[in-house]
Amino acid sequence: MNYALTDFWVKNMNGSTGKCRKIEGGAGAPKGFFSAGVHCGIKAEKKLDLALVFSENPARAAAAFTENRIQAAPVKLTRRNLAGGRCQAVIINSGSANACTGDRGERDSSAMSRAAAAALGIDPELIAVCSTGRIGSFLPLERIKSGIDELATIIRQGGNGEAAKAIMTTDSRAKESAVEFKLGETALRLGGMAKGAGMIYPRLRVNGLNQATMLAFITSDAEVETGLLREMLSRSLEQSFNRITVDGDTSTNDTVILLANGSSGKNIGADDPNRPLFQEALDRVTRELATLIVADGEGASKFIEIEVRGARTAEEARAAAAAVANSSLFKTAVYGENPNWGRIMAALGYSGVEVREENINIYLADIPIIKGGLIADSDPDSVRKRLTENRLHFIIDLGQGEAGERYYTCDLTPDYVQINKL
Amino acid sequence: MNYALTDFWVKNMNGSTGKCRKIEGGAGAPKGFFSAGVHCGIKAEKKLDLALVFSENPARAAAAFTENRIQAAPVKLTRRNLAGGRCQAVIINSGSANACTGDRGERDSSAMSRAAAAALGIDPELIAVCSTGRIGSFLPLERIKSGIDELATIIRQGGNGEAAKAIMTTDSRAKESAVEFKLGETALRLGGMAKGAGMIYPRLRVNGLNQATMLAFITSDAEVETGLLREMLSRSLEQSFNRITVDGDTSTNDTVILLANGSSGKNIGADDPNRPLFQEALDRVTRELATLIVADGEGASKFIEIEVRGARTAEEARAAAAAVANSSLFKTAVYGENPNWGRIMAALGYSGVEVREENINIYLADIPIIKGGLIADSDPDSVRKRLTENRLHFIIDLGQGEAGERYYTCDLTPDYVQINKL
Repeated sequence: MNYALTDFWVKNMNGSTGKCRKIEGGAGAPKGFFSAGVHCGIKAEKKLDLALVFSENPARAAAAFTENRIQAAPVKLTRRNLAGGRCQAVIINSGSANACTGDRGERDSSAMSRAAAAALGIDPELIAVCSTGRIGSFLPLERIKSGIDELATIIRQGGNGEAAKAIMTTDSRAKESAVEFKLGETALRLGGMAKGAGMIYPRLRVNGLNQATMLAFITSDAEVETGLLREMLSRSLEQSFNRITVDGDTSTNDTVILLANGSSGKNIGADDPNRPLFQEALDRVTRELATLIVADGEGASKFIEIEVRGARTAEEARAAAAAVANSSLFKTAVYGENPNWGRIMAALGYSGVEVREENINIYLADIPIIKGGLIADSDPDSVRKRLTENRLHFIIDLGQGEAGERYYTCDLTPDYVQINKL
Repeated sequence: MNYALTDFWVKNMNGSTGKCRKIEGGAGAPKGFFSAGVHCGIKAEKKLDLALVFSENPARAAAAFTENRIQAAPVKLTRRNLAGGRCQAVIINSGSANACTGDRGERDSSAMSRAAAAALGIDPELIAVCSTGRIGSFLPLERIKSGIDELATIIRQGGNGEAAKAIMTTDSRAKESAVEFKLGETALRLGGMAKGAGMIYPRLRVNGLNQATMLAFITSDAEVETGLLREMLSRSLEQSFNRITVDGDTSTNDTVILLANGSSGKNIGADDPNRPLFQEALDRVTRELATLIVADGEGASKFIEIEVRGARTAEEARAAAAAVANSSLFKTAVYGENPNWGRIMAALGYSGVEVREENINIYLADIPIIKGGLIADSDPDSVRKRLTENRLHFIIDLGQGEAGERYYTCDLTPDYVQINKL
């Protein structure tokens, strides 16, 4: 329920146990990554609005884009540039999504990549460009170019904090995560940063069609071949960014980029006994970042985990969990600390899964709230008290099989409406 | 855009034109229907909470229930009772949905039908039972029985207004509609009442699996064979109740019942030249009731019509319209009178339809707001002024084909959250 990273141990394929240690430094923690953030003038106030993450060498890259059919210009460019599996720098602006901007938008994204390439002295095709903010407005290109020149001179190992701030839109706080593990005497690191608070219901696919207002950048100094990197990212998304929702609105700009630059000197291969260590480190970082996004969802007062068990298939478990996590009535009830559990039952009923009412048991953590499809007669005071907590874990047992899935969401509050009416 | 009933003309299959006249009287307008509403004590305050609609003879009946897999007890009973195509009385309570109430709930629904049958002196299998309100609480059966006895003595032709009030939950006003048309010298009537404000995203099927918190009761004194009645209801739903959404939450209790008692002495047959007249009258009444529901949506300040044109198929037009109509971000922007049209584009992009950005044109009534996928440069003052109106018509042309569909919805406001947190 609490997905804040702590130290953890992973069993490797050869039976050995590897320890992962929580570290500071976000996307800048792995060796050979340099970053920074500046205010270039896209946002009105003096807020940071342009970030750069740079690798000392052309890193292997895996990326995932949303399945939204409407594509922002930077997404089209980044998908094209990363198709070859290499990327050395990511330039990200907040304050404008550069989506629904047509040919001019595409020229602007391309100009951003060329400006970054020139400032960094690298090939423009090694640049990923991401934008987030309002859809339909044009970028102030000259300001961005000046910002890029500034960034290229100030990027440094400790610049991750500024970079994480510079990609924020309606986020109330920066989101970073990083871990370290050892192979022999060598320390390997994996870190990341993410942004997102609204228009959050990512449906990401590695090499997918489209784009995102949820952005996440993961770096590692391991050396990993591109195909394997994509496979591991794909798996990791299915327990992190593809399992969160704030408002059910899938963005036109959602992008996750994973870079592995090999600067640690250590390789992770497909049949490597240490592969589980890297996968688990990646999973923990992506899940921490994903849950940080919903905990900071627009207007949110509560973090909610929906865990479905006892489904016939993982796909059905996921559909059931997603229906509850996206139900406005359920989320509003949670905001009101109102034990209106019929709303969960209704959402399960319309989820598309052929649930059987009488088989359903639901728990609020350890308190039964639905038993065999009926409201359980648990002590109302205990339920109410539990509902006042700001992290809630609902366990829904469909009683039809062995499959399970989790979704993470937040409550729906008047503040969500106030934030988005602007 | 304004679906309030007015007089209208219909071209019949024999080329003649029939006039339909708007009349008063709701579900009580057709000949041989009697109704009333009382306060029996389900709701705390002295509000009406029990309604009865009675036909002087066993009417032909068509009914539609939601596709939600979780079934309220009254829905199971009503589906069973109406399977034979006959119904003489509908008893409806508000204040409790009798859903997720297990065996006791089923016994309670059955007891309601038997009490109504006894009070009216008819077969219990001719009774439809509907319940609406909170899910998971049991009915106060003794109070309901007393209420039924009272109703049986007071039902009358002019009782429709009370009946329409007695089925309300979070509705702020009663919803009624009725029309009259002539076949030769004989006047035929069709009328109805509906309730619903939240948990509104009906997906109804004639003889469908399930239930609803949107309830609608349509009566007519035409004589129509059950198969044809079902066919006409099925068609009518696809331009009315199956095209509305308030919050995207499909209820466990949604039910539409259409009764035709033949008391006018006139028959409408499958090959009848006057069939279009009856169908159109039915369509106008169901659409007026459906649009009254969204206009009275929980917390709503604006009625919104989403009209999609230029789709490849009706199914795609519907999916595109539904995605926009259910988008929290779009609905919140409308509440804020905020011309954030990128949110419409994003919703179209995730609708599942393979839209092409550059083909899309969107209008707010007559004002272009998106042209070829880009924000149109219409006069901002005109747009802002139009957005202050309380009925908004968005026309979305996908530019891919000839098919079109409409959805009706309302804005998302802080009041929606306030109403539902309780």
